[in-house]
Amino acid sequence: MILHGYFRSSAAWRVRIALKLKGLEAEYRFHHLGRGEQFDPAYLALNPQGLLPSLQLDDGTVLTQSMAICEYLDEAYPEPPLRPTDPVARARVRAFVQAIACDIHPVQNLRVLKALKAQGQSEDDTRAWARRVIEQGFDALETLVAAAPGPFLFGAAPGMAEVFLVPQMGNARRFGADLRWPRLLAADAACAALPAFADTRPDRQPDAEA
Amino acid sequence: MILHGYFRSSAAWRVRIALKLKGLEAEYRFHHLGRGEQFDPAYLALNPQGLLPSLQLDDGTVLTQSMAICEYLDEAYPEPPLRPTDPVARARVRAFVQAIACDIHPVQNLRVLKALKAQGQSEDDTRAWARRVIEQGFDALETLVAAAPGPFLFGAAPGMAEVFLVPQMGNARRFGADLRWPRLLAADAACAALPAFADTRPDRQPDAEA
Repeated sequence: MILHGYFRSSAAWRVRIALKLKGLEAEYRFHHLGRGEQFDPAYLALNPQGLLPSLQLDDGTVLTQSMAICEYLDEAYPEPPLRPTDPVARARVRAFVQAIACDIHPVQNLRVLKALKAQGQSEDDTRAWARRVIEQGFDALETLVAAAPGPFLFGAAPGMAEVFLVPQMGNARRFGADLRWPRLLAADAACAALPAFADTRPDRQPDAEA
Repeated sequence: MILHGYFRSSAAWRVRIALKLKGLEAEYRFHHLGRGEQFDPAYLALNPQGLLPSLQLDDGTVLTQSMAICEYLDEAYPEPPLRPTDPVARARVRAFVQAIACDIHPVQNLRVLKALKAQGQSEDDTRAWARRVIEQGFDALETLVAAAPGPFLFGAAPGMAEVFLVPQMGNARRFGADLRWPRLLAADAACAALPAFADTRPDRQPDAEA
């Protein structure tokens, strides 16, 4: 398999974690988002959205969208499971994941920040916007998992929820958010000790920059 | 079941369609987004994100996030299926759905439009932003489904892809987007003839306004 990513893309980090949790290896090809390499025609032919990550399977099939890729990996390689089997429990994990993937990440990401800057918003105000989106989103998620016994959010081992939480917590730190979520931070800390999360960190990727 | 929605919320429309495709009935409770009723404490107790839709099951369980709700309905009520069974085919449907739910809808939605307006952007420019986000997103999706025989996108009957496409095409029309996607429009037209899509249209809901 070939994973197309970028060290700083939190969506690509999700897939790096999922692969590692499954014990799968993928060749890593990186595309520098700041230089717009995701819009090179050769990459657009693989992923018409011009977004990272994409996962190329050994037969050439290209999968896009980090959440779809993680669920694919969980269906094609069932052990260890990343999602509960009960439909209600599974819906709760998916809702947690989608709150990050739909309502936090795209709204604090490059495209919206660029649009705000193009409107004349300062760098500081733009970072404040990203911070606020992350803080409001994580406030709601902290409430959703308040009853979890911990340290992990939906069971005795990390799964899809942690695969999405940890990279988003990385963004929270990068934008200087107020880290005020004890349950989320406990899960983040428990994950940080595990190779699937530690070895896949942005600063440990071959394309990492200071 | 109780569906918490709003006639104009395209995320709520997705769940109305999925329920109807499954032949399920739900009591409809509406929350006026323009008046901020989604932030009433009673609703926030159900859905800490303050977003629509939410689905309350008969045992009181509250499910949030439209995509998670649709996959729940497909797992709890398997017939007719809304997703293919093959993992790769399923990943393709999910990627299509997530391109709408993550990369188009939240970026053209109220929160970002309000932020742009607060920056002094005109109503016209704000609408142009929404239009551009939808057009760029649908351009990529048209490419992703170019090989589909039609009229539906991933099979002989409408499923998750159409559940997400039709409400987003509604937003495309509302913002005056350039409707330049023959495959997507053919699927949209085929769906428009079906009660699950026609009866759930925003203008046919009890809380509809002109």
